[in-house]
Amino acid sequence: MNEIIRSLYERKSMRVYEECPISPEDKRLILQSAMEAPTAGNQQMYTILDITNQELKERLSESCDHQPFIAKAPMVLIFCADYQKWVDTFTEADAQPRKPGVGDLMLAVCDAVIAAQNAVVAAQSLGIGSCYIGDIMEQCELHREMLKLPEYVFPAAMVVFGYPTQQQKERPKPERCRLEDIVQENVYRRREGSELRQMFEKETRNRSFEEWAQAFCKRKYNSGFSREMTRSVEEYLKSWM
Amino acid sequence: MNEIIRSLYERKSMRVYEECPISPEDKRLILQSAMEAPTAGNQQMYTILDITNQELKERLSESCDHQPFIAKAPMVLIFCADYQKWVDTFTEADAQPRKPGVGDLMLAVCDAVIAAQNAVVAAQSLGIGSCYIGDIMEQCELHREMLKLPEYVFPAAMVVFGYPTQQQKERPKPERCRLEDIVQENVYRRREGSELRQMFEKETRNRSFEEWAQAFCKRKYNSGFSREMTRSVEEYLKSWM
Repeated sequence: MNEIIRSLYERKSMRVYEECPISPEDKRLILQSAMEAPTAGNQQMYTILDITNQELKERLSESCDHQPFIAKAPMVLIFCADYQKWVDTFTEADAQPRKPGVGDLMLAVCDAVIAAQNAVVAAQSLGIGSCYIGDIMEQCELHREMLKLPEYVFPAAMVVFGYPTQQQKERPKPERCRLEDIVQENVYRRREGSELRQMFEKETRNRSFEEWAQAFCKRKYNSGFSREMTRSVEEYLKSWM
Repeated sequence: MNEIIRSLYERKSMRVYEECPISPEDKRLILQSAMEAPTAGNQQMYTILDITNQELKERLSESCDHQPFIAKAPMVLIFCADYQKWVDTFTEADAQPRKPGVGDLMLAVCDAVIAAQNAVVAAQSLGIGSCYIGDIMEQCELHREMLKLPEYVFPAAMVVFGYPTQQQKERPKPERCRLEDIVQENVYRRREGSELRQMFEKETRNRSFEEWAQAFCKRKYNSGFSREMTRSVEEYLKSWM
């Protein structure tokens, strides 16, 4: 296994950071790595917001499901799917662009997230930990106002970065499913009950499959923040439909 | 600059491949790298379809905007956002899941694309080139039938892989915008006409900004495949709304 693949295998989320800033040189390398990511038609359909204002970090740590570690991170980046700049460019050139649609949004979300993952990989190579915050998709109205997002800008991913504490470095990485559980050949095949039970066997630990799945469903999927995410994304989608 | 960051900087799309298969060991490393990617709540909300059937590759090369190189690629992976397996798991456990919504879809798309980018980075480290095919989001009805996709599975990204020809290796990587064009501090700021003109200065070459933008808008944004992508994604969204 080469160094790059080892780094991908070892990367895990880090949520507690040393009080140590990220140097401008390292920040530039991380941002440039994001910029060098694959992008459909070289269109770079994203804008990266670099959140440096401490008050704004604190507001985000509240609005993103009350996670105080966000405010303590020395670097906070929001990867926004951005079609606004393309609509504005085409309009400036009198190119008569059509209204952006959900296909454009999805393509721009892919672009933004691909760039985010390059930033994560680059950071890891510099000893800098990171954590994705999916909750940035929640609270449409509030985040649009806080970040001054126009109609065709959607915050696809927030990633916070910092030098991990020793405790964070030593924390075991959550085990993934087996490759056979995730990869299927040629066509999608719905998993049967027995397969689903086997797939999550290591998650259930001392509990029954039912106990584990019911608790997990309640805590994650049927939770308030999860419902809020769908409400909020529906609100964003109105611009694109 | 370390080896990992250099690799991210150097990576570019490769579309022509040597007739040389990818070994099962390398394929496994690439797939496992995808699996080790960050994933919200360790949920791995994706299924990876490994397209090995030559006839299916050929059909995909037609349905994905007629790109014959897809059929010639020794490895074709489709990263599907997959909530079906979670709904099925929760249902199997009688956990009474709610109906999946567009927030769940977006989170799963992020998961799938983050995994895809890890596969791309791992492949690059093994000398294997890759190319994203966004067109997999088009042709909802056809792709659902071809890949047997149930209601809560969305093909977020297709990536084709192979050993690049010498010509592909030597092709220059398209230049990205300047960091200053993409990164903004704290809040989004809509770019003025003069900034947009400057941002795309190197794209316009011998043409005026208007000529370049009008041609680009016509060829990409106002094109048939681009409109088809929005039509198709709207069709997929119906399941989630």
